[in-house]
Amino acid sequence: MSANVLHPVPHLTTALNGPLFHIETLMLEHQSKIETWLRKEWLKHPAPFYTSVDLRNAGFKLAPVDTNLFPAGFNNLNPAFLPLCIQAVQAAIERLCPEAAQILLIPENHDRNKFYLESLATLHEIISRAGFTVRIGSMNPELEQNREISLDSGRKIVLEPLVRIGNKVGVKDFTPCLVLLNNDLTSGVPKIFENLEQVITPPPNLGWKHRSKSNHFKHYQQVANEFAKIIDIDPWFIDPLFRNCGEIDFKKREGENCVAKNVGKLLVNIEKKYKEYNIEQKPFVIVKADAGTYGMGIMTVHDPAEVTALNRKQRNKMASAKEGVDVSKVILQEGVYTNETWQEPDSVAEPVVYMIDHYVVGGFYRVNTKRGDNENLNAPGMQFEPLAFVEPCNNPNKDMSPDAEPNRFYAYGVIARLAQLAAIREIAE
Amino acid sequence: MSANVLHPVPHLTTALNGPLFHIETLMLEHQSKIETWLRKEWLKHPAPFYTSVDLRNAGFKLAPVDTNLFPAGFNNLNPAFLPLCIQAVQAAIERLCPEAAQILLIPENHDRNKFYLESLATLHEIISRAGFTVRIGSMNPELEQNREISLDSGRKIVLEPLVRIGNKVGVKDFTPCLVLLNNDLTSGVPKIFENLEQVITPPPNLGWKHRSKSNHFKHYQQVANEFAKIIDIDPWFIDPLFRNCGEIDFKKREGENCVAKNVGKLLVNIEKKYKEYNIEQKPFVIVKADAGTYGMGIMTVHDPAEVTALNRKQRNKMASAKEGVDVSKVILQEGVYTNETWQEPDSVAEPVVYMIDHYVVGGFYRVNTKRGDNENLNAPGMQFEPLAFVEPCNNPNKDMSPDAEPNRFYAYGVIARLAQLAAIREIAE
Repeated sequence: MSANVLHPVPHLTTALNGPLFHIETLMLEHQSKIETWLRKEWLKHPAPFYTSVDLRNAGFKLAPVDTNLFPAGFNNLNPAFLPLCIQAVQAAIERLCPEAAQILLIPENHDRNKFYLESLATLHEIISRAGFTVRIGSMNPELEQNREISLDSGRKIVLEPLVRIGNKVGVKDFTPCLVLLNNDLTSGVPKIFENLEQVITPPPNLGWKHRSKSNHFKHYQQVANEFAKIIDIDPWFIDPLFRNCGEIDFKKREGENCVAKNVGKLLVNIEKKYKEYNIEQKPFVIVKADAGTYGMGIMTVHDPAEVTALNRKQRNKMASAKEGVDVSKVILQEGVYTNETWQEPDSVAEPVVYMIDHYVVGGFYRVNTKRGDNENLNAPGMQFEPLAFVEPCNNPNKDMSPDAEPNRFYAYGVIARLAQLAAIREIAE
Repeated sequence: MSANVLHPVPHLTTALNGPLFHIETLMLEHQSKIETWLRKEWLKHPAPFYTSVDLRNAGFKLAPVDTNLFPAGFNNLNPAFLPLCIQAVQAAIERLCPEAAQILLIPENHDRNKFYLESLATLHEIISRAGFTVRIGSMNPELEQNREISLDSGRKIVLEPLVRIGNKVGVKDFTPCLVLLNNDLTSGVPKIFENLEQVITPPPNLGWKHRSKSNHFKHYQQVANEFAKIIDIDPWFIDPLFRNCGEIDFKKREGENCVAKNVGKLLVNIEKKYKEYNIEQKPFVIVKADAGTYGMGIMTVHDPAEVTALNRKQRNKMASAKEGVDVSKVILQEGVYTNETWQEPDSVAEPVVYMIDHYVVGGFYRVNTKRGDNENLNAPGMQFEPLAFVEPCNNPNKDMSPDAEPNRFYAYGVIARLAQLAAIREIAE
């Protein structure tokens, strides 16, 4: 497509792309087998309404690092592929609530965040164009009356106060049969959602209050093992190693030693794998909150000693997640280098893949000039530059090289769907 | 989208666009109502696997003139929207035969037609990329062994002889549970398809041997009436008037008078409508075979006398359809001017809209410099120039003018789905 000439994709550091090229080759070769297996899995349990998955591409390894069931960032997708989103929303709602004509959308409360509001506007647009009447009901207790907000994109959205009438939630004169949550309920499920007689999706108990990353990655490990058998690879190429500890209190310095000890063990295991595949980079571990999102409380560790040497400011940062929720558990995860770069050689790019139902509908890169290749790119104040995928992820082309764009994007879509499958099993549990 | 600048769409003659602008305005305004109604209809009976609909856009009127349940022409769609086709195929097969991994595709027998073969290759590509193993089994009795064909597009396809093993059809070592027909079985359902233990879609009895255009348009009339009530318009704006006669034999000149009489009545009815809406063009009638495709045996008539004044050559042409099948019944249909033009003012364009399942996945214009605005553009040897739609049909934009491209294409998609709904009811009958 000529669009590629205008919008080149980040290019992978070629020195290390041997194994990934191999994985992409196998994915392309076994595409029909992969898709058939995925379809069988979806028959057991349906996919959630939407999912976004953060990937890290090390060249020798392609792995998910976060799976979000209440995604934002829809405004970063390529507008050329909104029709794919629209079609997928139609399919999703047809399965979920076939008679629905109206949809209530419940957003995050941080409604002064202009990036989030742009995402909300795009989500509203997608669902409207799919042929539904959509209104936005905000749980924000500060919102006492309708608020129209003008966005930088020139669009306008209206937030209306969420109300409960009998066993239904809605906004004024609007209590539809289908409620779509775009709020990850970090602080738990509010009372207003108890015993509703409406379809509410994704279910409120999928909020981070009830999920944990270590449980998610336990399921992912199992999924990765099954998948690795299908295409006959070492599952490590798609699965980050991880460990977790029990309770931890960074402020009081309780549990630090357990973290340090496990970081040490994990580094040894990563080192072994690096030796097995002649990888010369330095292993590292990501320590992050076991529940939550927005990359608060995340650190990169190359040595167990770094954990016990944190200063007070760093410990306070590690201790707090979104909405002031305290971090009491952490997951220690193998750090995956990001070897995709964009324009300047030191500008790193991390793909984020979007799914609606089980359909991969697009994605974008978080591009960051100020961060290293071993750092998390989704952090507060991180100022990433979104770079929309130039091609969709569902259009692999066997006549092209396995690492040609459509096939690279297809590989992203496969790994993202494996992470989604882990979430599906988590939900079914 | 910037693509518009590079690929302008045919422009509508503006002098006559008043009523159409009105219809498009209403469609946009009632989009959610329209889509909800369509969704309810699809719950009663599912959509066929694929459908293409020929439309005529007169500026004052937008109507379907043919509905094909075994479409070709997939190669004429915009490659940028193949992902939409891929996703729709995934949804369609998930509903039809969720465990399918392999698909047998049965093409038309006119396998020397390079345009058809390009369409077949694209269809093969779409289904493969959707994650299925596809092979092509040809019913052509002349095909005794596998034949690889190199296409002008640089692609290759392999036709394999269709065989029956027990109660299944297949090709060598390949008898999948799902068989996809891309052959409209003009000559009837061959024995090889009797009592199959496979899912065969669309069902073979939907071939033209069993369908008639007048039955289709009887259902369409009903659909158009229901739809017209929803958006409150005169159904005539979207529905071509029609009449039919009993048996006719053009060669023996039997039944000619009935045709002439009914053409006269139809012209009077069209004239009335033209007067009601101050349309100054001359009414005309299309006389065509009541069953069949490929525009054989089609004529444009402005006066009943033209029917009885046919010379022998014209009568022979009217008497024969595809594969030498005799025409014994005709449908007389209100001619709809095509007022879309492309580049040169005398080059007319006719939209063709494609659906997979109930999803509108794209379309193209048949552009013809040598034909008039009252002539059929799908005729043998007609040499049309395909011009892919630059935008999909599922992405209406209320912030733009009702006749802006995304909204014009949305209107096409609505009317095409009304024609498909008529076919759905025809099938359910």
